[in-house]
Amino acid sequence: MVRVIEERLAELGIELPPAPAPVASYVPVAVAGDLAFVAGQVPIEDGQVMLTGRLGDVVGIEQGQDAARRCALQAVSALRDALGSLDRIAQIPQVTVYVASIPGFTDQPKVANGASDVLVQIFGEAGKHARAAVGVVELPLGAPVEVAVTARLT
Amino acid sequence: MVRVIEERLAELGIELPPAPAPVASYVPVAVAGDLAFVAGQVPIEDGQVMLTGRLGDVVGIEQGQDAARRCALQAVSALRDALGSLDRIAQIPQVTVYVASIPGFTDQPKVANGASDVLVQIFGEAGKHARAAVGVVELPLGAPVEVAVTARLT
Amino acid sequence: MVRVIEERLAELGIELPPAPAPVASYVPVAVAGDLAFVAGQVPIEDGQVMLTGRLGDVVGIEQGQDAARRCALQAVSALRDALGSLDRIAQIPQVTVYVASIPGFTDQPKVANGASDVLVQIFGEAGKHARAAVGVVELPLGAPVEVAVTARLT
Repeated sequence: MVRVIEERLAELGIELPPAPAPVASYVPVAVAGDLAFVAGQVPIEDGQVMLTGRLGDVVGIEQGQDAARRCALQAVSALRDALGSLDRIAQIPQVTVYVASIPGFTDQPKVANGASDVLVQIFGEAGKHARAAVGVVELPLGAPVEVAVTARLT
Repeated sequence: MVRVIEERLAELGIELPPAPAPVASYVPVAVAGDLAFVAGQVPIEDGQVMLTGRLGDVVGIEQGQDAARRCALQAVSALRDALGSLDRIAQIPQVTVYVASIPGFTDQPKVANGASDVLVQIFGEAGKHARAAVGVVELPLGAPVEVAVTARLT
Repeated sequence: MVRVIEERLAELGIELPPAPAPVASYVPVAVAGDLAFVAGQVPIEDGQVMLTGRLGDVVGIEQGQDAARRCALQAVSALRDALGSLDRIAQIPQVTVYVASIPGFTDQPKVANGASDVLVQIFGEAGKHARAAVGVVELPLGAPVEVAVTARLT
C-alpha cells in the first residue's frame, strides 16, 4: 500500500497535530457522498487554544499565519482520523478562513495564507482551493483564527 | 407510507415552525443533485424576529441557544416544505452557526449547541454534522443567531 | 453552438468584469465533481478594490448593493474563465454574502440583494439560490462586501 500523502508529510517534516475529539452533537468530519465536511478548527495545542486575541490588536500577522496553518493541519488530521488514510482525499476544493479582527484590520488574506500554503504543500495541485477569508468579531475560545475545510474523496 | 422523522418529531413533542416564505431572488432551499442547501435562518416568530441583540450584551447564552434551536427547526421546516417529506433527508452533514457577538464573547459553541442538539434529537446519527461557529458583528433584522444548514438527500 | 447565457448577458447589457487572477495557493474556481466553488469575491475595478468602508458608516445601502452586484459578476466571470462557457453552469444553488458592518447595521439582506438579483437576471430560475447574509467586522482590502458562490455544473 502506497501512502503518498504520509510520505509527503514526512518529506516536509510535518507531524500532524492530534485529531480533534468528537463532541456531543457534532462530529469532526461528516462524509456526504464524495464530499467530506470538516468542522471549523481553532488552533489547539496540548488540549488548549494555542493563542487568543484578535488580529490588529494583540495578535500579529505572523502569529495569525501560524495559527491558520495549525488549524489547517488539524483539519487534515481530522480527515486522516475519519477516513483511515489521507490517500482517500482526492482534492481540497473549498476553505473558509475566519479571522478574529479589530475594526481597521483588513489583512485577512495574509493570515489565511498560513492555511492555504500548507494545504498546497501537502496535496500539491489537488490542494488548490477556492477560498473565502473574512474578519469576524470573535471566535470560540478567543481564538484568532478558525478554518473550515471541505474535501472531495476518491 | 412510513413517516419516520415525523413520528420522531411527535415523540419529541416538537412542532416545526412555519416554513420560511420564498423571497424575490433567493429561495429557502436549493436542491443541487443530492445536496440541499438551506438559506441562512434567523429566528422568526409570528412573522417577526424572535429576539434581537448580541450575545455578551443583552442576549444571554440560554436565550441564544433557544434562538439557535429555533433557526435549526426553521431549516428543517424549510426542507420539509421543499422536499415534501423529511424522510427524503439522508443526512445533515454541515451546519454553520453565526452568532452576533460583542468583543469579548467567545462562547459561540455553547450557543450553537442549541442548533446542533435538536438536529441530533430529530435525525439521530444522521444528524451529526461538521459545524463551524463564529462570532459576527450583526445579523439580519438584529437577530442574535443565524444558522445555515446543508442536507444530503436519499 | 448556442451560447444561451452570453446572449442573456448581452440582452441585459451586462459586460462581465475581468476574471480574478489566480494567486499562489488558492484558485478562483475549484471544480469538485459537479460542483464548482468560487473563491470569495471582493469588488475590484481597474485592479483595485472598488470602494472601502463599512455599511452603516461611510458606505450606504445602494453603494453596498452595487458592490455586491459587482462581486457576483466577478464570480460569474471567474466561472466563465474556468469552465470555458457559462452554459456549463446548471444552477447557482448557494451564495454567502459577507457585509462589513458597524454595530447597529442590520440591513445585510438589502445589500445582499445586489448579488442575488443579478444572478437571477442572468440565470433565471437556475440562479435562485439559498443565501446566507451576515455582518462581519472587516473584509480583505477594506471592502464593504464579499460574496462566495457555489455552482452546479451540467
